[in-house]
Amino acid sequence: MKNWEKNIRKVVPYTPGEQPKQANIIKLNTNENPYPPAKGVYEAWKNFDIDKLRLYPDPSIGKLRDEIAKFYNVSSEEVFVGVGSDDVIAMCFMTFFNDDKPIIFPDITYSFYDVWANMLKIKYKQIPLDDNFEIQTEDYNIENGGIIFPNPNAPTGVLMPLEEVEKIIKNNQDVIVMIDEAYIDFGGESAIELTHKYDNVLVIQTFSKSRSMAGARIGYAIGDKKLIKYLNDVKYSFNSYTLNTMAIELGVKAIEDREYFEETRNKIIKTREWTKEKLKELGFIFKDSKSNFIFARHETKKAKEIFEALKEEGIIVRYFSNPERINNYIRITIGTDEEMKKLIKFLCKYLEKNQIVL
Amino acid sequence: MKNWEKNIRKVVPYTPGEQPKQANIIKLNTNENPYPPAKGVYEAWKNFDIDKLRLYPDPSIGKLRDEIAKFYNVSSEEVFVGVGSDDVIAMCFMTFFNDDKPIIFPDITYSFYDVWANMLKIKYKQIPLDDNFEIQTEDYNIENGGIIFPNPNAPTGVLMPLEEVEKIIKNNQDVIVMIDEAYIDFGGESAIELTHKYDNVLVIQTFSKSRSMAGARIGYAIGDKKLIKYLNDVKYSFNSYTLNTMAIELGVKAIEDREYFEETRNKIIKTREWTKEKLKELGFIFKDSKSNFIFARHETKKAKEIFEALKEEGIIVRYFSNPERINNYIRITIGTDEEMKKLIKFLCKYLEKNQIVL
Repeated sequence: MKNWEKNIRKVVPYTPGEQPKQANIIKLNTNENPYPPAKGVYEAWKNFDIDKLRLYPDPSIGKLRDEIAKFYNVSSEEVFVGVGSDDVIAMCFMTFFNDDKPIIFPDITYSFYDVWANMLKIKYKQIPLDDNFEIQTEDYNIENGGIIFPNPNAPTGVLMPLEEVEKIIKNNQDVIVMIDEAYIDFGGESAIELTHKYDNVLVIQTFSKSRSMAGARIGYAIGDKKLIKYLNDVKYSFNSYTLNTMAIELGVKAIEDREYFEETRNKIIKTREWTKEKLKELGFIFKDSKSNFIFARHETKKAKEIFEALKEEGIIVRYFSNPERINNYIRITIGTDEEMKKLIKFLCKYLEKNQIVL
Repeated sequence: MKNWEKNIRKVVPYTPGEQPKQANIIKLNTNENPYPPAKGVYEAWKNFDIDKLRLYPDPSIGKLRDEIAKFYNVSSEEVFVGVGSDDVIAMCFMTFFNDDKPIIFPDITYSFYDVWANMLKIKYKQIPLDDNFEIQTEDYNIENGGIIFPNPNAPTGVLMPLEEVEKIIKNNQDVIVMIDEAYIDFGGESAIELTHKYDNVLVIQTFSKSRSMAGARIGYAIGDKKLIKYLNDVKYSFNSYTLNTMAIELGVKAIEDREYFEETRNKIIKTREWTKEKLKELGFIFKDSKSNFIFARHETKKAKEIFEALKEEGIIVRYFSNPERINNYIRITIGTDEEMKKLIKFLCKYLEKNQIVL
């Protein structure tokens, strides 16, 4: 080993979800939106002045912050924008989680929280979900250096009612409480209104799911303007120009179109409800999902086998080999009606349940 | 003060360079390229499939890494790509600067090094440039936890010959040595070849200057594949999907066009040499610049006054009020011939030197 290797930051290399390149596959593994971006995005693209790319983007991301603020009826000073919600949450961890007490989050949850904590040398404690995969709010009444949880939770899809979310906040006003709402638009009630009542709350959302813009890398946090200022201070100390000019211009158009947003998220909800029915008929067991995916196990067949059979058929879903508690589940992203019909059709054949009507 | 405020990461808020929004100004303050991106970028833009934006980008940024590797005749495993060179260098700091010994860099240099060190709680020591604004390589023969310096240096524009760069590397093989080559294409010799000879060297470059793509936020590091792997491990632990799909597609076309790159950088070099002559005639004093800017003081007039007079005329240059050693200098980005003529014309009038021939 060379001497310089002694000072390398040692991390457990994280492997991001598969991004298969072949055509004709049905990609239901990374919770992307099956519908294309809003029409305005195409217009913005057509009208984009490429010559402008020689110049730096607006470091304050003003136009896009304004548009997000408008959509949620908050002020621009209450909005922080980053390179996807991963960037936003990582910045939040750096900015707000600097206590010696451990931060707390669920044991079954978005797989990046412990990765960030490890990388940033933040102590953490994972609070087990109950046997129904639900967060018990009283478990969060312990000394801690900060709290984060997704709502709906990932990869379970289970939604916590807003009153429950508020209970956690109420009992934890000395630390920052972050609610990761990547999937909130598929049937949940956002905690954004609570950011006006509590100045220690940050709500994090993304353009990657309900806005059909995973490729553009846009995430945002909404909270008290004091929190947003602290976040911007850290961001400017890291990289002043994060969002590129294209993301800013296209992002504005993606959030502007409320009608398309409503239309597509309702379509996804409808498809999800249909898929739930069929999966139940097929013998799958799952908690009620309010996200754009379903996290399910089968009454007899092993998840890993189903995962592999689907893969062979060109249908990619997500399978987590650990933690052990969830290693018999598959997570299926909600695609188009057509895609879900193909999925169910294959499962009927595979599970020998030919009586199911599509 | 609220209790949660005790655990905020305290940083000195950094103010990024002005990005004025009014039209008709001559913007010579942030070292952007006066020429638009390469033609292929326009083509890629036209052919871009916006529907694809619903999907995550390739987390490995494969296409763009391949193209950069091709340009520099290295392998893709020797290339790391990030959201501008600021993101790349910040990731390098996190990955490689974890020793208790201070990292070292020049006292007059890119203003972000101490910002990153402070934010990441890395000890550092600034090594004074000599009176000629030059790096004395023997000053870097001290115990340290890592080294970074730009070549050419910023904001001085002074270039260090490659033999001198190699001296620093040779004497510091137990730590990572980073050479920040944001401005190398305007007349310097890159240290990329040294990354094959020394496995502890990283060369950082950017699309923001010589590639006319500041708005796209693309930077990269070239080094031994072991170093690049460590960097990617940390990157994946922070944010798997950093570059958006647009940046990847357009970036490929920007680096592909070697001819346009040569043409525009030579034009900038020619304009710079002309500007140097005229500035000398006007009584400006400066070290020879091998970058796309000139860092100059005037023999009689105060820099701050010149800066303000120019600003009033709609010509924005950069003035640094500190450190004190450079607070009587202005930094002028090289624009088009026309822009530089306007600048010189105004300065002739302002400094009452009407004998100068344009």
